[in-house]
Amino acid sequence: MHLSLSDKIELNILHHNSHQAELNKIRFNDLKLICLNIMSSPGAGKTKFLEKTLEDLIINFRVAVLEGDMTTNLDAMRLEKLRIPIVPITTGRACHLDANMVSGGLKILETKINPELLDILLVENVGNLVCPAEFEIGEHFKIVLLSITEGEDKPLKYPIMFREADLVLITKIDLLPYLNFDIQELKSNILSTNSKTEIIEISSISKTGFDLWENWIMDKIKAFKA
Amino acid sequence: MHLSLSDKIELNILHHNSHQAELNKIRFNDLKLICLNIMSSPGAGKTKFLEKTLEDLIINFRVAVLEGDMTTNLDAMRLEKLRIPIVPITTGRACHLDANMVSGGLKILETKINPELLDILLVENVGNLVCPAEFEIGEHFKIVLLSITEGEDKPLKYPIMFREADLVLITKIDLLPYLNFDIQELKSNILSTNSKTEIIEISSISKTGFDLWENWIMDKIKAFKA
Repeated sequence: MHLSLSDKIELNILHHNSHQAELNKIRFNDLKLICLNIMSSPGAGKTKFLEKTLEDLIINFRVAVLEGDMTTNLDAMRLEKLRIPIVPITTGRACHLDANMVSGGLKILETKINPELLDILLVENVGNLVCPAEFEIGEHFKIVLLSITEGEDKPLKYPIMFREADLVLITKIDLLPYLNFDIQELKSNILSTNSKTEIIEISSISKTGFDLWENWIMDKIKAFKA
Repeated sequence: MHLSLSDKIELNILHHNSHQAELNKIRFNDLKLICLNIMSSPGAGKTKFLEKTLEDLIINFRVAVLEGDMTTNLDAMRLEKLRIPIVPITTGRACHLDANMVSGGLKILETKINPELLDILLVENVGNLVCPAEFEIGEHFKIVLLSITEGEDKPLKYPIMFREADLVLITKIDLLPYLNFDIQELKSNILSTNSKTEIIEISSISKTGFDLWENWIMDKIKAFKA
């Protein structure tokens, strides 16, 4: 196999990242802290989804959030009213979170709360359907949000992201009556990319599907803590 | 200024890219071929916009398209029915087009048509609101599409892309009645990031705003050919 210099540099960066991701995962496991990496395009509704899901999750679980953003802490500010520990991670020009940034975020989190008290760490990645898929952060599960306004073809066009997903949340399902959108085609495109992923349709406005999503996460936590 | 190794590598890559972009621009100028770099998130409606705009543009102009996609040529296939020269550029794992890929695309285009016959080269970039902003391709204008389903905050969260835009097209404006969306707030966020950019609201379904967009491009072509 012939590799160009830029391929070699990229593989080296990914190799170093994987090593740090493994260290993160060991730390999460020691803490019995389940870590979810939440990814999507810009504007698919990650922060709104987190706002709505946290309102429910914090009744039964102790949750913290690492909030990835390129330059602002706007998303972190939106979540602050929930009074849970939130660490904004501004990535600068980087278009994704990497394992080092998450390790640094965890260290800051530990100055705010004893991490042994936590059950769930939600990591909101930078809005990007490409690069975050290639950078493990030590997460236990990858969750990809895809809004129905983005079109049925996206799993075919961004296959790396969908191939890695443990769960695909189809968002903004409340807009279905106003779009010329074939949800069966979308599902078939998701499954043709990754036949093992689970799919749940949700709306963070009407909270459609939140019962299914919350059952999904409860099951994962139960299995993780067992 | 202290630079890390990865910063140095990145600057070096961007420097090489800028050099090739300059060569591309010289070639476009020699050909009197205006080149537009069309960028957005995945699913903001770039291909639909191109379909609708090309139906009108090809009446008065000779147009070709370079169609950037990571792994598929789905978008290129959607445009093929218009019977204009289209070159798909699959970027593999790369999350953006760069100047070298565009130079290669132009060489393939030249096997399909004498480029001196062309007036406009439309380049549809990979769906990504981050990385394409940093890679010049030799374009004369950068056009950024942003769908109203993506939220008012995106120009603040992805400022590099909006800082570079000559024109921001606010898309899917037909969905406005069904969203809780403040278009004035979006416009103010765009202009606070880049006070010089122009903004046009469009819908590729109802063709709202296409008269304004087509006037914009006519003016640019007129000035370019003068």
